[in-house]
Amino acid sequence: MAAHKVILDESEMPTHWYNIVADMPNPPAPPMGPDGKPVGPEQMLQIFSMPILEQEMSAERWIAIPEPVREIYRLWRPSPLCRAERLEKALGTPAKIYYKNESVSPAGSHKPNSAVAQAYFNKQAGIKRMTTETGAGQWGSSLAFAAQMFEIELRIYMVKVSYEQKPFRRSMMQTWGAEVLASPTNLTQAGRNALARDPNNPGSLGLAISEAVEEAAGREDTKYGLGSVLNHVLLHQTVIGLEAKKQFEKINVYPDMIFAPCGGGSNFAGVAFPFFADKAAGKKVRLVAVEPSSCPTLTKGHYAYDYGDESGYTPIMLMYTLGHDFMPPSIHAGGLRYHGDSPLVSQLLKEGFIEALAVPQVATFAAGVQFARAEGIIPAPESNHAIRAVIDEALNCKKTGEPKVLFFNLSGHGHFDMASYDRYLAGKLEDYDYPEAEIAAALDRLPKLG
Amino acid sequence: MAAHKVILDESEMPTHWYNIVADMPNPPAPPMGPDGKPVGPEQMLQIFSMPILEQEMSAERWIAIPEPVREIYRLWRPSPLCRAERLEKALGTPAKIYYKNESVSPAGSHKPNSAVAQAYFNKQAGIKRMTTETGAGQWGSSLAFAAQMFEIELRIYMVKVSYEQKPFRRSMMQTWGAEVLASPTNLTQAGRNALARDPNNPGSLGLAISEAVEEAAGREDTKYGLGSVLNHVLLHQTVIGLEAKKQFEKINVYPDMIFAPCGGGSNFAGVAFPFFADKAAGKKVRLVAVEPSSCPTLTKGHYAYDYGDESGYTPIMLMYTLGHDFMPPSIHAGGLRYHGDSPLVSQLLKEGFIEALAVPQVATFAAGVQFARAEGIIPAPESNHAIRAVIDEALNCKKTGEPKVLFFNLSGHGHFDMASYDRYLAGKLEDYDYPEAEIAAALDRLPKLG
Repeated sequence: MAAHKVILDESEMPTHWYNIVADMPNPPAPPMGPDGKPVGPEQMLQIFSMPILEQEMSAERWIAIPEPVREIYRLWRPSPLCRAERLEKALGTPAKIYYKNESVSPAGSHKPNSAVAQAYFNKQAGIKRMTTETGAGQWGSSLAFAAQMFEIELRIYMVKVSYEQKPFRRSMMQTWGAEVLASPTNLTQAGRNALARDPNNPGSLGLAISEAVEEAAGREDTKYGLGSVLNHVLLHQTVIGLEAKKQFEKINVYPDMIFAPCGGGSNFAGVAFPFFADKAAGKKVRLVAVEPSSCPTLTKGHYAYDYGDESGYTPIMLMYTLGHDFMPPSIHAGGLRYHGDSPLVSQLLKEGFIEALAVPQVATFAAGVQFARAEGIIPAPESNHAIRAVIDEALNCKKTGEPKVLFFNLSGHGHFDMASYDRYLAGKLEDYDYPEAEIAAALDRLPKLG
Repeated sequence: MAAHKVILDESEMPTHWYNIVADMPNPPAPPMGPDGKPVGPEQMLQIFSMPILEQEMSAERWIAIPEPVREIYRLWRPSPLCRAERLEKALGTPAKIYYKNESVSPAGSHKPNSAVAQAYFNKQAGIKRMTTETGAGQWGSSLAFAAQMFEIELRIYMVKVSYEQKPFRRSMMQTWGAEVLASPTNLTQAGRNALARDPNNPGSLGLAISEAVEEAAGREDTKYGLGSVLNHVLLHQTVIGLEAKKQFEKINVYPDMIFAPCGGGSNFAGVAFPFFADKAAGKKVRLVAVEPSSCPTLTKGHYAYDYGDESGYTPIMLMYTLGHDFMPPSIHAGGLRYHGDSPLVSQLLKEGFIEALAVPQVATFAAGVQFARAEGIIPAPESNHAIRAVIDEALNCKKTGEPKVLFFNLSGHGHFDMASYDRYLAGKLEDYDYPEAEIAAALDRLPKLG
């Protein structure tokens, strides 16, 4: 058997992030206020520090990764590129399957790639405190780790129902020194309003965002950190795909298809964007974003201006959306339960550079278990979406005899998701009907422009 | 800052395990029956297959790691050797701190190093089924992973109280396809006896061992797998220290002191034994086993023949012991709650080649949190024992100004131990008084020889 892992030396770690905006044929549409006018920097600077805002607006192709960020990255990066040869054998496919193992970070997912950068740039800008929100806790734990590395105080608004039902991600955040509050709180107007309406409000991601943003906007020393969707977050994640390109070069292989789970878009962007330039230059590579069929933003949503959050605090952005107040079913891949998608990912789909497909929940867990039994690692429920798509394509190759090279992002491990595996193994996991009526109704409530 | 990790290529992975018996000045004392006569192979073969028994008895210095075992090792090995430079800075010590990161295995600890070997050799011997026991689940999940890799059926007797209170390690074992039963069961005589005495018996590790051994002894197609203590288990773990030696050679560094947690002994043996030969040849290196002060086998036990299990099913072995029916306090480092210690480790301590020290529980968690906040990784409670000892030594170096090279085994991550971190962070974790009376009483019940 061939080597399982392709490893880069720390000295081979990318020195720059890749900004896809420089290579997109059309410039991205600007975020706008509800009045239909582009949002000015002064509004954004209320919640983001200047270096973050500069990256958000930049059209430079390469943006340097500062040495202090690289120092923290080196705690786990470069991450391995692995050949899933045992899975290939189990499937009997002629396809070659590779994955980038992002589960090796301290927080157990790709999320720290941006969290570390955000903590560093805020620290550089003299910021002492940050706020953020978290649902199941992948992003919250990543920013908790990162904030500790740069000695930034962090307050995390954690959706109350997760705070109570998933205590161990909370413990992780606290171990790294973050303050974790069950949202809604009575510390913000948004929280107080929600509690006035319902003292037993279980919270929601949209509400937690509103609390974190409100606090950051109201305090000079405090900025907000977001885990996906925005350009600068996607930028930071490109370290994944840039490493993967070097790793593929070392073994003289180039992927035919690249798969990643897609919720807000940073996972997909991280692995796929660095290959986009090759594709734009004529290279044949298919980039496939995989989403849950119960929250089918890219495959069933509208391409329209919409709010990033449920309550309409954020600017409106041009993206695929199911409507900002669409409430996705309670699937176990919490990281993919988002009504919208990154504007950059959305535009690439609209313009035909990438593809999207949707897969149902039970089949994703079946894929995750099959992967674990072949390759060892128990994947995060989000990652199982990519694995499902890869296995389906590999089985297709078995029929056609094509030895395609399939590559996916193993974005995280499932150590904090074992209750979901339990439900799957007990046959209690459900698929959800495509929530057609709810999506149609939510799309009717999209903001009306001009 | 220097590179954080020293990485070996897969081609540099050791080809042989190191058998310390070949280099020990005195041969190990043989296991005996309660009659005081050495145990014959026919008794051992009831529960172990021939290749395992051969390794258990071998005095060959090098034992080849078969290619199929190396193939599975490559899923995560070679593991990184890391420099904890951020921890050094936080401590302000002139000491240099290195650790071997064994948390990167699919099961999250060093345990698969032996589990994979045991599954392979049993498969080679035509064995279709294995049994084992597990407490908190580190060993059970490792053998579940390994058995799945070689398509061996596995039944795990999991201590009932852990089965109910720590469901996620159980989910992991089931994800890898193992059958997990809450022990005591009514499938074995040992279980039925225990249930007859108390239908609500919460189980114990000793009882679970008895069930697993009884089943293996009674079925031709089934053998038993043990996670520590015995010579062959320690042998398999030496891949850790052998890799570390190569990694230190690459950076032209040699450790002054090596630390590892010590429960049954395989963790310590894995990292320290390969350095023993150098030490025996005159090299100055101190090998330090770190145990909990509430279960101080090496520091307060007797060096005597005793049973390996609570109920006296196993042969008696010459080792440090607190008495086979001593019940250690319920500390959170479940892997270190063992009344005895490996005969090989015990003999090395008795003969003055290694050192042992005991540390209290709360201080180990303080060390773990300090490590997590400097280096990112949240360690397993067992690993925190080594970290406590390393930090204390590094602080000592700060006083003396000595730039010692300190090396320890980060044997696992704490992702399934966050409830313990919760208790620590909430100030609810307890230290236990040294259980002097209980240990004295248990030592009085040691088997009488001759």
